[in-house]
Amino acid sequence: MKIVRFKAGDDIAYGLAEAEGVTVYQGSPLFAWEATETVVPWEDVQLLAPVLPSKVIAVDANFLETEDDGAAQLSSDPLITLKPATAVTGPNAPIVHPPATSELVHQASLAVIVGRLARAIRAEDASQYIFGYTAASDMVAADIERSEARSSRARSYDTFCPLGPAVETELDPLERLAIISRVDGDVRQAGFTSDMIFGVAEILAFVSTVMTLLPGDVVLMGTPPGAAPVAPGDVVETEVDGIGSLFNRIVRA
Amino acid sequence: MKIVRFKAGDDIAYGLAEAEGVTVYQGSPLFAWEATETVVPWEDVQLLAPVLPSKVIAVDANFLETEDDGAAQLSSDPLITLKPATAVTGPNAPIVHPPATSELVHQASLAVIVGRLARAIRAEDASQYIFGYTAASDMVAADIERSEARSSRARSYDTFCPLGPAVETELDPLERLAIISRVDGDVRQAGFTSDMIFGVAEILAFVSTVMTLLPGDVVLMGTPPGAAPVAPGDVVETEVDGIGSLFNRIVRA
Repeated sequence: MKIVRFKAGDDIAYGLAEAEGVTVYQGSPLFAWEATETVVPWEDVQLLAPVLPSKVIAVDANFLETEDDGAAQLSSDPLITLKPATAVTGPNAPIVHPPATSELVHQASLAVIVGRLARAIRAEDASQYIFGYTAASDMVAADIERSEARSSRARSYDTFCPLGPAVETELDPLERLAIISRVDGDVRQAGFTSDMIFGVAEILAFVSTVMTLLPGDVVLMGTPPGAAPVAPGDVVETEVDGIGSLFNRIVRA
Repeated sequence: MKIVRFKAGDDIAYGLAEAEGVTVYQGSPLFAWEATETVVPWEDVQLLAPVLPSKVIAVDANFLETEDDGAAQLSSDPLITLKPATAVTGPNAPIVHPPATSELVHQASLAVIVGRLARAIRAEDASQYIFGYTAASDMVAADIERSEARSSRARSYDTFCPLGPAVETELDPLERLAIISRVDGDVRQAGFTSDMIFGVAEILAFVSTVMTLLPGDVVLMGTPPGAAPVAPGDVVETEVDGIGSLFNRIVRA
């Protein structure tokens, strides 16, 4: 099932995405919710980020860039970085290009949404803690990342974490699901969830030994090779098999 | 005035620290609160972290380690790293030593508490956005930080951000306020707020150009030279002039 968060008129709600529109629910699917009889037709729906996380964790270097990368990466722990919740934005919302960078890079990623409090869980139990999956465009200022090794700034700007369009609760990331990014329609990245060095269960277990994961928290699973700079005016698309496409236009600050 | 958050019996509340005990308030000082007539005597007060931030930003390398460090650091932007809100803990609570590190280091820091939403503010307006100040022991796994340059893991473990004992709303960090850390009573670090490379107003302005700051968010202003490893059993103290002392014992996981 595909869960969306959306605005219709002045109201914000969660709902189920269906062919004719969105069936409105009361409450939150992460805690308790209940269907209403209202269906909002798609033309009146403005999609929002499908979750409001307390934190976003991004796994770095989780796809092989070249054959040579393999051995070194496989032998070490997953690399996890943080993005603040204030970086989250929704489908069709602008990504603001900060004046401080001249190398804003888009990174298509599968996003895992945590369903319940997870602390030091085992990989074999991870599926019980997953609410669902969405697509993310994990934005990074690559020049700032290079010049400030230990800094979180490069990944933390407002709007650097578009999420959406929907949370798919039935996805199986162990299948060979394509993760594709396009800029103005041209393919920039194409990879498969089956090529991730660390899988979803392994990553959730690892992260939960470091920090307690809360309902709605988001883990970005890393990006396939080919991420490249974008410029104001470009429309960035991240598509994940079974989830759909997330579109965001880069705008000047 | 000194604001605390505390537990007394089964109740958690904010209050004002006074000689005879804590005057209990209803609500939150960040939004709206009102004094009650109840004063809880100190022996019945269990202090908690004085704020519940949505995020914690830590400024790295904000004191000169040696004379040689100066030029390079002064010429660049502040280095900002993130700690998740789940790392926050309170006075007298244990700091859990993760098995993954053999070099857990305590870093005494002045913590700035944001009072209202701040986005791209000017340094000269920063004081209007500050709720107050507290002390922090900014814990880091130094071996993980060295081996994982771009990772946030080293600073993100649960309990790695003790805050307290109180929020002092009247502090002036432009004064020469001592920041001292002790382990089992022995001084390990001693510096002054006046020695910080980037001041509070400058840092708040800079951070607010990167990410929107929300009421209760915490900015750790960096640590004086002398931070060193601690071991299970050690009691870490961070003292800041005008705020008081924050004590936490290191315990095994």
